Amino acid sequence: MNDHISQQFNAELEQVKNQVMIMGGLVEQHVQNACQALEEGNTALAEEVIEEDYKVNSLEVSIDEQCTHIIARRQPTAGDLRLVMMIVKTITDLERIGDEACKVARMALALAELGSSKKQYFEIRHIGNHVTKMLRSALDAFARTDTESAFRTAAEDQVVDKEYEGVMRQLITHMMEDPRSIQPSMNVIWAARALERIGDHSKNICEYVIYLVKGRDVRHVSLEEMKQEVL
Amino acid sequence: MNDHISQQFNAELEQVKNQVMIMGGLVEQHVQNACQALEEGNTALAEEVIEEDYKVNSLEVSIDEQCTHIIARRQPTAGDLRLVMMIVKTITDLERIGDEACKVARMALALAELGSSKKQYFEIRHIGNHVTKMLRSALDAFARTDTESAFRTAAEDQVVDKEYEGVMRQLITHMMEDPRSIQPSMNVIWAARALERIGDHSKNICEYVIYLVKGRDVRHVSLEEMKQEVL
Repeated sequence: MNDHISQQFNAELEQVKNQVMIMGGLVEQHVQNACQALEEGNTALAEEVIEEDYKVNSLEVSIDEQCTHIIARRQPTAGDLRLVMMIVKTITDLERIGDEACKVARMALALAELGSSKKQYFEIRHIGNHVTKMLRSALDAFARTDTESAFRTAAEDQVVDKEYEGVMRQLITHMMEDPRSIQPSMNVIWAARALERIGDHSKNICEYVIYLVKGRDVRHVSLEEMKQEVL
Repeated sequence: MNDHISQQFNAELEQVKNQVMIMGGLVEQHVQNACQALEEGNTALAEEVIEEDYKVNSLEVSIDEQCTHIIARRQPTAGDLRLVMMIVKTITDLERIGDEACKVARMALALAELGSSKKQYFEIRHIGNHVTKMLRSALDAFARTDTESAFRTAAEDQVVDKEYEGVMRQLITHMMEDPRSIQPSMNVIWAARALERIGDHSKNICEYVIYLVKGRDVRHVSLEEMKQEVL
């Protein structure tokens, strides 16, 4: 009987993990589509991202409920409890990433309406690719509970921040040189900011993976300390 | 014996709630100080906000640990479990509000360095006051588990968003009229954005209070639906 219950419990945990991966895949798709919409001035794709955000939200609510149910019925401890708690946090970050993808999509719409040249979007294409890769790696690290990969991915956030600062400087210079570009540049700035935030949220997910495996909360420690915890 | 355990349990829950209120009070102080630093060009106060952020972070980590301990040892269900779960979420938002206060403080430092006129800061003083009030009301609603007050406070977020949009339009017009103001205006824009985010996080806390009392997740429902849930 105990074996049976424990098997059921493991199956439930696996199922919730799978749901998180489904939610992660959806959010990743939204980020990619939002970036593509921005690059190509594809308003239909941008609108799709915004319209589909409710799916991300309902997955958050449903996974959250499942986690509370599991805690109430299964009373997990140690590693199992850490898994449930890190899932509760992970889905909050995934939901926020979905929100940031919507912001990028809204900026794609605003830029299309301004009829502004696509030249500017190239400046943030690189950041878009980078954070999409970070998000995918964070989800992989979660799926495989791989702390080394989680650490490497978390470390990428510093690089994204540098890229973001570079783009910001470029855009501000551009605005000063040509004040007519202020309106479109502001939209590109908001999109870049949203992408930079996606990097932050992906880093958070990596930190939860390390917490899950190592039992140590590494949210507010230096990269060097995090490295020592992992290696 | 059971009474004794249950008394201990209640005492533990009360203690964690008190810790959340301490963390909330600290964060509120940081938001106020950051706004004051911005308004007065007070760099010492801005630096204090940034330096003291570690206190907010360690409270987050410590309250989070206490919550996991309570779940593992006390195996709470129903309302008690909801309380613990909403506390876990609340402290994430409080920590992020602390981060946003730091951003405002950093903008105060940047503006002081640019030696820019204080005239611009008035534009965001109103938003600063408004979100500080929202945060305090959200914490009050949490302390008194008052869903009606939580709803009223959550509804304020729409007003803050409107104020933010107004300030944004004003600043962009200002930049277009006088390109020399782009650099300082961008700092004011980031500060306004951080304040607007504090409104969002305060709204989140209100939604958790409603979840705690009503057992319904109202994070992604309309204000009208939320109202019906509460009244």
